[in-house]
This record gives sequence, C-alpha cells and structure tokens, in this order.
Amino acid sequence: MPIYTPPLKDMEFILHDMLKIHEASTPGYDELDVDFTSAILEEAGKIARDVMAPLNAVGDSEGCTLDNGIVRTPKGFQEAFDLLRAGGWTGLDCDPEYGGQGMPYVLAAAVGEMQAGANMSLNMYPGLTHGAYSAIHAHGTDELKQKFLPKMVTCEWTGTMNLTEPHCGTDLGLLRTKAEPQGDGSYKLTGQKIFISAGEHDMADNIIHLVLAKIPGGPEGVKGISLFIVPKFLVNEDGSLGARNGVVCGNLEEKMGIHGNSTCVMNFDGAEGYLVGEAHKGLRAMFTMMNEARVGVGLQGLSQAQAAYTNAVEYARDRLQGRAVTGTQNPDGPADPLIVHPDIRRALMDQKAFIEAGRAFLLWGATMIDAHHRSDDKAANGLVSLLTPVMKGFLTDKGFESTVQAQQIFGGHGYIEEQGMSQFVRDARITMIYEGANGVQALDLVGRKLASDGGKHVMAFFDLVKSFIKDNAENEALKADFLEPLKAASKDLQAASMFFMQHGMKDPNAALAGSTDFLHLFGHTCLGLMWAQMAKAAQEGLDAGTGDAKFLQNKLVTGRYYMQRLLPETGLRLARITSGATPVMALAAEDF
Amino acid sequence: MPIYTPPLKDMEFILHDMLKIHEASTPGYDELDVDFTSAILEEAGKIARDVMAPLNAVGDSEGCTLDNGIVRTPKGFQEAFDLLRAGGWTGLDCDPEYGGQGMPYVLAAAVGEMQAGANMSLNMYPGLTHGAYSAIHAHGTDELKQKFLPKMVTCEWTGTMNLTEPHCGTDLGLLRTKAEPQGDGSYKLTGQKIFISAGEHDMADNIIHLVLAKIPGGPEGVKGISLFIVPKFLVNEDGSLGARNGVVCGNLEEKMGIHGNSTCVMNFDGAEGYLVGEAHKGLRAMFTMMNEARVGVGLQGLSQAQAAYTNAVEYARDRLQGRAVTGTQNPDGPADPLIVHPDIRRALMDQKAFIEAGRAFLLWGATMIDAHHRSDDKAANGLVSLLTPVMKGFLTDKGFESTVQAQQIFGGHGYIEEQGMSQFVRDARITMIYEGANGVQALDLVGRKLASDGGKHVMAFFDLVKSFIKDNAENEALKADFLEPLKAASKDLQAASMFFMQHGMKDPNAALAGSTDFLHLFGHTCLGLMWAQMAKAAQEGLDAGTGDAKFLQNKLVTGRYYMQRLLPETGLRLARITSGATPVMALAAEDF
Repeated sequence: MPIYTPPLKDMEFILHDMLKIHEASTPGYDELDVDFTSAILEEAGKIARDVMAPLNAVGDSEGCTLDNGIVRTPKGFQEAFDLLRAGGWTGLDCDPEYGGQGMPYVLAAAVGEMQAGANMSLNMYPGLTHGAYSAIHAHGTDELKQKFLPKMVTCEWTGTMNLTEPHCGTDLGLLRTKAEPQGDGSYKLTGQKIFISAGEHDMADNIIHLVLAKIPGGPEGVKGISLFIVPKFLVNEDGSLGARNGVVCGNLEEKMGIHGNSTCVMNFDGAEGYLVGEAHKGLRAMFTMMNEARVGVGLQGLSQAQAAYTNAVEYARDRLQGRAVTGTQNPDGPADPLIVHPDIRRALMDQKAFIEAGRAFLLWGATMIDAHHRSDDKAANGLVSLLTPVMKGFLTDKGFESTVQAQQIFGGHGYIEEQGMSQFVRDARITMIYEGANGVQALDLVGRKLASDGGKHVMAFFDLVKSFIKDNAENEALKADFLEPLKAASKDLQAASMFFMQHGMKDPNAALAGSTDFLHLFGHTCLGLMWAQMAKAAQEGLDAGTGDAKFLQNKLVTGRYYMQRLLPETGLRLARITSGATPVMALAAEDF
Repeated sequence: MPIYTPPLKDMEFILHDMLKIHEASTPGYDELDVDFTSAILEEAGKIARDVMAPLNAVGDSEGCTLDNGIVRTPKGFQEAFDLLRAGGWTGLDCDPEYGGQGMPYVLAAAVGEMQAGANMSLNMYPGLTHGAYSAIHAHGTDELKQKFLPKMVTCEWTGTMNLTEPHCGTDLGLLRTKAEPQGDGSYKLTGQKIFISAGEHDMADNIIHLVLAKIPGGPEGVKGISLFIVPKFLVNEDGSLGARNGVVCGNLEEKMGIHGNSTCVMNFDGAEGYLVGEAHKGLRAMFTMMNEARVGVGLQGLSQAQAAYTNAVEYARDRLQGRAVTGTQNPDGPADPLIVHPDIRRALMDQKAFIEAGRAFLLWGATMIDAHHRSDDKAANGLVSLLTPVMKGFLTDKGFESTVQAQQIFGGHGYIEEQGMSQFVRDARITMIYEGANGVQALDLVGRKLASDGGKHVMAFFDLVKSFIKDNAENEALKADFLEPLKAASKDLQAASMFFMQHGMKDPNAALAGSTDFLHLFGHTCLGLMWAQMAKAAQEGLDAGTGDAKFLQNKLVTGRYYMQRLLPETGLRLARITSGATPVMALAAEDF
C-alpha cells in the first residue's frame, strides 16, 4: 500500500528561502516565521501521513453507499474527519469572527496539499465546505453569516456547490432549477443537480448546499441566475436544527475514482432556500467559490503527483531488475535497483522537476491571494486572476501525466489495484475535469483573462520576468542555465500573445484554436520562472553557507533538468499556436 | 453505453489506395482484391460492432471470478467466443496444414484492430492463443505441432504466455521456475508465474501454457532459459484429454482495467511439460511470441483510441453547450453542439490525425511481416524488427493519451463509469505496460535495434523517406504541406541517431537517457511518412476522379493537421535528446 511522505523540507524552502514570506508586508505574514510555520506544517504532515493516508485505499475500495436516502462514507473517515475538526484544521484560514484561526491562505495551501495528497476523497468534505464558507462570507448578509458560518468553520456542518444539471455543465445559462419567492424573504427551490460532491453523507449534522437557480421572471441566460443557501435541515432561530428540508440524494454516481467522496444526484422539491447576494447576480457570487476551488483543484492535481512520485521513488530504489549499462552497481544482489536505469531516472526527474516548481507556483499564487484579501493589492489580484486558469489547467494536466509516469515505474505491478498506484491516476483524472474542464480554463485564459484591463496583467507578468532576468544578469550561476532558457520561454509566450492580438480580433477561432497550447506555454513559462527563482535562492544559500548544502545543490540540479528538458516545450506550443485556426477548423462537423 | 464503429472505409483506403496490397508481389496478396478484402472486413466489423462491443461494458463491470480453482468469465463471453470460433476467425492467418485459413497477416491485423477495439478483454483469449500457436509453429517438433496446433487454431484450446514471476518481469535472467527432466523426454515444472492473461477460464476445453523455466545445471541468467508447453489437461495419444496437470490458478488480480480478461497467478507443482525448441534457447522462441505480441499490443492501443474517438465525436455533435464564438450555429436549439468550439475540435483532430496514421503504420508493418514470412524478405524483416518497439511503444503511449482526450470531451460525464469512456482509458493503460513496458521498448530500440546489422535498417528507413521525397519533389500538392515537414522530421531523427553514435559508445547513458524521446521522435517521423503517403494516394484519387472525393479531401485536411500541429514535436524530442545524460543522471539515487 502506498505511503504518504510530507514534502516538508521543500515547502519550507519555497516559503522562506524563495518566497521569503516572513519578510513580506502582507498583514498576518509577520506571524509566519520559520519556527511557527514549521511547527504547523510538521503537525499537518503527521496527520496526513498517519491518519489520512492509511484511509486512502479504504476509501477507494469501499466507496460510498446509498441506503434509504442515507449515504454511508468509508470506514474510518468519520474518525479522521473528527480529528481534523478537533485540531481546528478545517478553519485554519477562516475569519476569527466566525471561529476561524485567521491564518494566511499560503499556509492553508501548504497544509491543503498534504491533506489532499494523503487522501483526496476525504479532504474534499472540508474542502467543499471551505468553498461554500467563502461564498457566504463574501456575499451573504450578516444574518446568514451568523447563522451558518460558525458551524461551517468547524465543519460540524459541511458545504456543497450545486451548479451542474443533467443538460448543462459549463453552459450555466441553460439551467432549469427554479427558485420561487415566498414573500417572507425565503424561496422554494425545485429542480435536479448532478455531480454534487459530498452532497449527502453521514459525517456532519447538517449540510449547507449552495445552489444556483433561476427566479421566475428574471433575465434569460446567465444574467438570470441567483445563488441560494439550501440547508439539509432548516436552522431554528436559536441555532438548533429544525425540520428536514426538501432536498434529497437521489443517486450516487459510480466513478473512475475519488470513490471515498460521495458524488450525488440532488433532487430539490420545494426546498427552502435563502438568497446569497443580489437576485440575478448569482454568477458573481459563484465565482468567489469557483476561483478558490480552481486553485484548490490545481493543488489536488499537484498533490496526487507528489504522492505518486514518492512511492515511485521508493519502488525504483527497492526493485531489483537488470544491470546498469555502465557497470554493476549492486554486486551483492541478483540485479541492480531500477533507479540505475536512465529511462527510469528520466521519468522520475520529469516528475520531480514538475512537482517542485508546481508547488512553488501554487504557493506564490497563494501569496498573491493573501495580498489581495489582506491588503487589497489590486495588482496581485489581477495577476493571480490571470494565472488561476493556468494553475488549474496546467497543474492538473501535468499532475495527471505525472501520476501515469509514477504508475509506469511499477510495470505490471502498477496496474494491480492492490499496489495503489492506479488510484492516484484515477483520482487525479477528475482534477482535469471538474471546476471547469481544462478546455474551459484555456478558454477563460485566452478569451477573457488575457485581454482583461487592456492586457495589463499579462504585461505585469512579462515585466516580472524581465526584471528578474535584468536584476540577475550578472549572476554567473544563473545566466546560462536559468536566465537564458527563461528568456526564450518568455519570448515564445510573448510571440503567442502577439499572434492572438494580431489575429484574434478578426478571427476569434485563430486564438481559441491555440487556447490549450497557450495554457501549457504559459504554465511552462511560470514553472521556468519558479525554477529561476528557486535556483537563485539555492545559490544564495550555498554562497552564504546557510541551509542544507546537499538539498540546495539538488535544487540546482533539478532546476537545470527542467530548463533543459521540459521548458523547451514552449517552442512546440508556439508552433502549434501560430499554425492558426485553419488546421483545427477545416473539417466539417459531419466529416469527423 | 459506447458503440463501436468499424473504420472500414479508412482501412480500405489504406490497404488499397495507399499500400496497394492487391498489387504487391507477396505470395497470397493476389487474393486480397478489393471485393474479397471488403467482404471479410465488413463481416468482421459487423461481429465486432454487434456481438463483441455490447459485451465490453459487461466484461468491465462483472469481471472474472475465481471459485474453487474455476475462473468464470463474464456473461455472454462464451457465446461470443463460440461465434468467433464457428466463423473461423481465430485461425484467419494460421497455417492451413493445421486448419487455418492461411490469409496474410495484414488482413488479420485489420480484423484484429476491430475485434480489440470492440472488446479488448474478450479478444485477448484468442489473441494470446495466436501468440502461443506461433511459438509452437515456429519452434516445436512435428509431434508437438500435430498434437496441439489444430485445436489452438480453432481455439477449442486456448493458449497463454508464462514469463513473469513475482520478483522478475523484464529481467528474465532472474527467473526461478524449474523444469526437471524425467528421462522420457518430458519435464516436471515447479514454480510460480504471475500476471498470466487468460491463464485460467471456463471457455475452452484445454489451456496450453507456454512457460519459461530453467533446467537445473544449465547456464546462469537468460542463457539458461528454456520454453515448455504445459497443458492444463494432458493430451492422450489419440488426442483425447487425459489427467489434470499440476498447474492451477492460485489467484486473480484486481486490475485497473481489462476486467473481462482473467489475470492469473499460476502455480506449477510438478506439472508435466514438453520442451519447445532447444534447451536453454527458450528466449529465442519466446521472442517469436513477443514480437508478434508487441505488434498486437500496438494494435490494441490504437484500437482503444479509435473506439473512444468515435464515441467522442458523437457526443461532441449531440451535446449542446455554449455558442460558437463566431456566431450561433444552431439557432433553433438552446445552445450549439460542442463540436463548434475550437478547443473541442483541436482535441478531436489530435485523435483523428493520430489514429489514421497509426493505422497506416501498423498495416504497413503487417505487410513487411508478411513479406518476411511469405517471401523471406530479409530487408522487410530488418525494418519491421526495428520498427516493432516503435509500433508498440509509440502507438500505446499515444493511444492511451488519445483515450484520455476522448474522455475529456465528455466533461464530468466522462468520469462516470456508466458512460463507458473511463473503460477505454483504463483498458488502454495496460498496453503501455505489458509485453515489455514502453521504457523497455525504448531501450530495445536504442540499445539493440538501432545499431543492429551495422545500422543497416535505420539507414533503409532514411532511404525510404528520402526516396519518397525525391520521387515526389515535383508534386505541388505534397511539397509544402507534406514533404517539407517530413523532411524536417527526418532530419531531426537523423540528428538524434547521429548524437547517439557520437556519444553512445563513450557513454551509453547519453543514448539511453534519450531513449523514450527517440522512440517518440521515431514514431512521429513514421506517422509523418504515413501521412505523406496517404496524401499522395488521396491526391491521386482526386486527380483521377476515382473514389469518394469528400473522403479524399478530408484525408488531405487531416494530414495537414498532423504535419502542422503534431509532427513539429520532433524538434522538442531532439532538444531533449541532445541535452544528453547529465541532466538525467546528475542526482544521486538517495536524493530523489
């Protein structure tokens, strides 16, 4: 069975050596010194490794069951969830006014990677609650906040997001669920929602559904969508639970993975609900949840890659098979370990070089989210909004690919469920799909984010790269190995942006045909920047003689691998993009 | 539930317009005229679509069960298998001396793609039998052939390949199964084999295991391996079944996919066996099976891509979601079909452009196998041996990727098992692993095949490309769109080969670190050549006014997509290769 190894050392390097969070001016970051942060991460890592990870395979093989409207979660999930609640982990970065710990998101993100890596299905119950919490926190009235948030912060009550209906996923304008006003400020909701993660389960006293629905008479399409709170049990004035509301789980889906999380068909039959935010402005409120959820899904993708990778490394060190082509390395054994073989190393280095930069990318993004929320930094908000589809789409595409590579190291054993590597692949697969399929992320990036505010945010990204290269131009340790490849990648990204600007206005298809390639081109450039920044931090540590020299040298080695063997993909992506719309659109729909 | 659509038109185009098999001088090809071939393919397609495909999901959800040593296959499998037997499909290309139809392999390969695409798990039962048949046919004594082959040709008896043991997969030198000579020419085999596909099941009267084992006192390592026939039931002189032999299924593996095929732990406990070929020369005989099996696995990978693709196309045409960015295309509906969106088309074109060229590549390979077997064409044998790891490794890597893309088109619905797209992904995943994991294929290609016979075969490949380009240099329809990109790809492949020659002798790791990249670089170049040849054939048809003009034009469109958007990957692969061994090997094993 796979084990989970918390990547503590790497997280600490990124947070303190690279991002230097303890020196940042963002309110709350002064608390994040090395000792405090390490203590939190170490404790979270222990829970992930010792409590959550051992239940991962259990969740996969047992799954959830629906019996008479009651959804039973896998054995052990309740106890583990209780432990997360008791430790205050579910409200780590929530508002202290409602019982949260008030920690910055960057810390919650690091903790979240470990919790998702250890047990993605289990971690989705508090994870979705957090998304629902954020939407109510940002858009709900004081009354609603007082009523619902304290119990959601502690996860005594869990939350859900109800968007999808059988006939509409991405295209929410088509949704049919109706919310009839009752004259007393409440609404009655009727309709069916599908793919509702944690929609029903036996681990919480109440479930707070956030539901998109249409108020009759409102505008057509997405402009007529409103957001509602629909609790499973109505909540009395005194906070005690009242009558069972008219929302039930009609079915559980059999899925490729995340079996430990209940994916529900939810039927609303005149269920009582309360408007969150303004009528017909539900999409805006929903996007509060969605943007947070998208970064969270990027984290999930990365987390599965990390979990799978560490197991693949162990296997490659232990499994004896064949001899090194350059001469026997394990003369006392019947064969050498797999890790002597260049192609096994190539696969492991691909994973390692992706994972470490992906982690830096996400944690950097988290610092920008904090800067936005804690000091209203509009530039940070603009940049992280631009990068959110990249974090979601690129890190989950590559995260999945990385789990497949890890599974491949095991040969036939990787295909056997007992070994547990298949689960990483099957669980990671959903991250490319939910919270906006990755094609939708690419569309959001190219069709919306890229040109928003007159292209200001992408220009800010280019400036960032440029300044970094300029500021370190004399650094011989970085020059050839890091700055030049980064410059080349950034040039490819600029050329692609330019191509879209020149052709996209006349022919939107010319831009959209390259949207997924652009997302990957952007992702690689971001990871290239992360590696350059990590290399700089590592070199500084080596020069100053601080830190673990071996660890810092390995950072440089891994970074060089990324720059030499992975980053050059930007050129290919650019070539695809500049081939334009014709190859993609030339075939008639009936000719496929 | 997915449907299976036989790609008849495309197969016929490849066989007759591109490969012109009916004009080839290979003995037996004169029978393969358009009418005869079409009749066979049409009938095979019907069985695949109407009989095998409807059982695909059944096999996945029911799986196989082991009960008191008896393995039960999914409902309906027996009847479908009987139908394949009754139609003579199991012996299509087998030797008429043993009851086969004596058809060329190229026809069997086309039929095989459809059978595997419709139901990979079911098709593995006759598929493995064919591999065992080939090994006995090539290396067995007349007595063994007379005794076993007729019943294997009809699949009354099925066959297996027993190589892997718990501690050794690729590294067969480590195997422990022993074969003790009994003095009467027979042996007693004792040991355990794992991952034995179709090792035990309830669909045949007898199961003929081909088993690798060591005769005590023989040479160490792979030079001491012999191949044996071990029947489940001993066979009497008169051909009737005798005593139960000492080989039993100890367990069934729970796998990620191919649930309809039984993957068995086989325990040999003094089981009676008969030597096939010479003692200690078992590996050579095994490779007869392996090479055939590798091409077959390439076919499987492609077949899953094809099956998944046609379902994705249907879904993309039917599912209404969003509006085309260039203006509404389905004004009477609530939304436009998915297929209007550029990124959906990009994903479909990726699949289509890969699949059609992959099919051409395999069928071209099959003609070379026929040329070798039927007219002892050594050049054809050399070239197809070189290309076998490419067919296996590249077509299964890309085939799997293609099923993931097809699944992605379905959004959340693709993740639900009921929809059936997950099964294509899970089933395709094994093709990258078994019959030599793809990393082993890359090693075989770079470490063995590339330099074999002084590099003669790779030179023959380059000559082929060169001649094609030269012969068609004046063809304006091909020049810019096909010949130039092909030339560039071939140049990249030559540069990579040159890099290996220059560095590989001094430092084998410099070559092996790029082995997987080389396999993909070679694969893309082959598919580029296939597209150039298909484009030529399509253009000839258009010029002559023969054939379906729309179909031929679509070929050109799809080919241009490949050349513009997929083939440029060769440059990236070359860059990775020429970065050499350092980035890959620099980290110490303990530092991962």
